[in-house]
Amino acid sequence: MPILCKPSVSVPEHVITVEETLDFAEKVHSGKPQLPLALRLIKNTGVRKRHIVQPIEKTLLHPGLEERNRVYEIESKKRCPGVIERALENAGTTVRDIDAIIYVSCTGFLMPSLTAWLINTMGFRYDTRQIPIAQLGCAAGGAAINRAQEFCTAYPESNVLIVSCELCSLCYQPEDDGVGSLLSDGLFGDAVAAAVVRGRGGTGMALERNASHLIPHTEDWISYAVRSTGFHFQLDRRVPGTMEPIAPVMRQLALDHGWDVGNLDFYIVHAGGPRILDDLSKFLGADPKMFRHSWTTLTEYGNIASAVVLDALRRLFEEDALESGATGVVAGFGPGITAEMAVGQWAVDAQSPPDRMLHRASAPALS
Amino acid sequence: MPILCKPSVSVPEHVITVEETLDFAEKVHSGKPQLPLALRLIKNTGVRKRHIVQPIEKTLLHPGLEERNRVYEIESKKRCPGVIERALENAGTTVRDIDAIIYVSCTGFLMPSLTAWLINTMGFRYDTRQIPIAQLGCAAGGAAINRAQEFCTAYPESNVLIVSCELCSLCYQPEDDGVGSLLSDGLFGDAVAAAVVRGRGGTGMALERNASHLIPHTEDWISYAVRSTGFHFQLDRRVPGTMEPIAPVMRQLALDHGWDVGNLDFYIVHAGGPRILDDLSKFLGADPKMFRHSWTTLTEYGNIASAVVLDALRRLFEEDALESGATGVVAGFGPGITAEMAVGQWAVDAQSPPDRMLHRASAPALS
Repeated sequence: MPILCKPSVSVPEHVITVEETLDFAEKVHSGKPQLPLALRLIKNTGVRKRHIVQPIEKTLLHPGLEERNRVYEIESKKRCPGVIERALENAGTTVRDIDAIIYVSCTGFLMPSLTAWLINTMGFRYDTRQIPIAQLGCAAGGAAINRAQEFCTAYPESNVLIVSCELCSLCYQPEDDGVGSLLSDGLFGDAVAAAVVRGRGGTGMALERNASHLIPHTEDWISYAVRSTGFHFQLDRRVPGTMEPIAPVMRQLALDHGWDVGNLDFYIVHAGGPRILDDLSKFLGADPKMFRHSWTTLTEYGNIASAVVLDALRRLFEEDALESGATGVVAGFGPGITAEMAVGQWAVDAQSPPDRMLHRASAPALS
Repeated sequence: MPILCKPSVSVPEHVITVEETLDFAEKVHSGKPQLPLALRLIKNTGVRKRHIVQPIEKTLLHPGLEERNRVYEIESKKRCPGVIERALENAGTTVRDIDAIIYVSCTGFLMPSLTAWLINTMGFRYDTRQIPIAQLGCAAGGAAINRAQEFCTAYPESNVLIVSCELCSLCYQPEDDGVGSLLSDGLFGDAVAAAVVRGRGGTGMALERNASHLIPHTEDWISYAVRSTGFHFQLDRRVPGTMEPIAPVMRQLALDHGWDVGNLDFYIVHAGGPRILDDLSKFLGADPKMFRHSWTTLTEYGNIASAVVLDALRRLFEEDALESGATGVVAGFGPGITAEMAVGQWAVDAQSPPDRMLHRASAPALS
């Protein structure tokens, strides 16, 4: 059974608080009729601060798509290797153990994908499969987990490295001043995350069953307009209401696995915004406290796109409160509107050397 | 065993011959010192004509990235459904049988990916997995086949639809006049291709073993510069020589399968250019005639990026000369520099109804 091991996450050194966000928004968009609503929405996100790769003054400038993408390349190359090293270590693996790299990122575009550079630079084997995914946005974290599950099911001895590099601040568009854009300016943050899915052994979430769901005819609810200035994020006001149609799909996935979705031991879900989390607990019939890790990610880092589920999972690991066999779900949501979901039990690997043990050593081994 | 069924391919209605290409190049770049070499290289590609989505006069204009991407969206939506319908029919499947869509395209960028639109428009199930890949360029056809093999290995009852939509003419950059760019202007063509990989049953190539290989430290040999004018294709002069390091990897893949790579019954390889095909036959020790389907694709359509392997495979099907159990290889090459390769035997499905039989009905069934 493939095991999703402890993620490693890093956020950049430049911090912007919600107070600073509100100040900047008031200064930059002063007098616009949509501003008061946007400010209210930003306050309601629950985001307290975000981390970004450049100082705020530089972030607010648009130096052109070419320069933006150059910064993306520099920053991703600077920040990914350390995060990957820690994820490999968390899983008790090395670069030579990795058979596939799934690289997800919707905030910059490189061809070849960063996977080629990672292989050349970090010493991964030259036969490592490269699976770069750019167009699933915030759902890509869940998608990467699910595709890794399938890869390890096809090759049970294999290990898959997931890398999520989301530098959302590099998609800031100064000219976009609709309510959805202003809200997004106050919502998204930057982060790099990585995790290994091990085909055999490892401590973490056993990936037992997954599912994907597209909400019919919502293609234009979350989308990019591609312009000479780069990707322009477009957010429909109906997006926060999408958990109502998603919840029954998550319920069915759990039911197919013999479980009641309202009564699981852990919930790792995309923190798209506060209503997403509030509605999910309501429609799934789960205690709102069960979404605490997603809430903390949102509060501390903002919406870090495909990296949210990996960061929330990291927090779950660090809480260190699960017994082997605990049941849970992980779910990413993004453009399409697409949900990528997986259910499975907590698994503890008794084979891991003690210094690598991420969980109580006395628990029975599952692997 | 997953079976790669007969692809469907469509090329656009606007045709540009090599003579017209040379005329346009001479007119547009008249007097430039690099022109004679570029013209000679174009003549040597072996490309006789290409098909493009817009008339040549319109193709040569650059209306801006936003408009280019809008055309990509319109044209991909216009051209993909018919090709997909025929691919489904070729495989004896319907939209409801498809469990995953792997959509590969490096010549336009949509988020959400076209997969969402295809599901909404063509009646695919809402639980269809979406796997959009944009950053593997010409290697993505081979990558899609390999990822489909793994998906069907993980879920043996499943079926995967591969769609390759390459509208290379929408990446024409009038300002780029280096030799590599001028050569590319005369090499690439547009096409849409699709094929189904069936987990059970079907007639075609059984996907028995695959491999990926990155040639060390060649990241910048094939790449995109991302600018306000869109993707700028950058081609290093060393690329045509890359079959020398790739051939031993293909040899090893065949050997791992118990086969001699110089003595297979079919070869479906990416027709990146004439030297790629010449060198492959030389370094693999295979009869150059065995690459005839790749040559015909190159001659008739130009380099149609990730769609090449699907079009060459279609020609192999139409030749209708293979017995069940015939051995072969399929290989895509692209940025990284990455090779995505698979080996397998020809399989004939005796279960297919006669009108769907794409191969001799008397051959023994493999599936």
